[in-house]
Amino acid sequence: MKLVLASASPRRSEMLRLLGIDFEVIPAGVAELTAGDPPVIVVENAIRKARAIERRGALILGVDTDVVSDGRLLGKPGDDGDATARLRALSGRTHEVLSGIALRRDGEERSELVRTEVTFRSLEAAEIEAYVASGEWRDRAGGYAIQGLGSALVERVEGDLSNVIGLPIPALGRMIADLQDA
Amino acid sequence: MKLVLASASPRRSEMLRLLGIDFEVIPAGVAELTAGDPPVIVVENAIRKARAIERRGALILGVDTDVVSDGRLLGKPGDDGDATARLRALSGRTHEVLSGIALRRDGEERSELVRTEVTFRSLEAAEIEAYVASGEWRDRAGGYAIQGLGSALVERVEGDLSNVIGLPIPALGRMIADLQDA
Repeated sequence: MKLVLASASPRRSEMLRLLGIDFEVIPAGVAELTAGDPPVIVVENAIRKARAIERRGALILGVDTDVVSDGRLLGKPGDDGDATARLRALSGRTHEVLSGIALRRDGEERSELVRTEVTFRSLEAAEIEAYVASGEWRDRAGGYAIQGLGSALVERVEGDLSNVIGLPIPALGRMIADLQDA
Repeated sequence: MKLVLASASPRRSEMLRLLGIDFEVIPAGVAELTAGDPPVIVVENAIRKARAIERRGALILGVDTDVVSDGRLLGKPGDDGDATARLRALSGRTHEVLSGIALRRDGEERSELVRTEVTFRSLEAAEIEAYVASGEWRDRAGGYAIQGLGSALVERVEGDLSNVIGLPIPALGRMIADLQDA
């Protein structure tokens, strides 16, 4: 069964490719919610993406991943100063990575919220500076990539790690199986 | 200051590149220990690699990473059956990822042991089959890559995650600073 990924994220494509899933990428280009309750926002955004693409008989996958700290979504840093401020705020503390995931086929739709807790080490100023200089934070929600250099910032992960990379694979597997049976 | 990576691992090169370190790769090609006490083995192998390369004034980096389950080193799976058996053995349990890391410059040498605990979810047979089919386990100690699809196998990580990818960056940072002061 063909899958359409309604997202331009290169990480998500790479994960689907590794899974051996037959898919194509059609970025949804929808207006995303940014204000409100974080779990509601990411699920709503995933659903909007999944509903934006019409492809009869195909599975349409929408995903929205963001980082929540002190009750608010961090989004992607705009520049070096912004990335530095985010890493300082996350240093030595636990934050949540939330993904909304929505899978649709014709009239049928499933959606789910996936949460992972990530605890950063207490970072020294020089470490934050080196990480910001690497540029790895660009285009990453929360300002780090846990599958790259960002792995060195981490002290503990509780929950699905693939969710932190940006595609919660166990949840996706369950939803694909469920919709194929529907 | 120039660094020489005495290892052919593409993951380690990629991490050093992201760190913006000026380095070259010269695989050490030493005989590695495989029997004995796991922490002793990985540190000894890292030291052997670091000592195998001569480059006056440069930092020589040796690293050896392996997975310990039930007190023994798992090494790299040889084939699909071997990869399947390892994942079954790791499913629903906690294992340790150990790295020995050794850094040498002329007469000075530092070495360290880094431990990270990784807990796998209880994996279903179909998940193990899909992971083995992806081929991602090839050439990976323990039979999985935590920065890729292997992230979906994980329920908890306790300790430095960069160690599990194969280069314990915080330890390396400390050792570089220490040797530069020596």
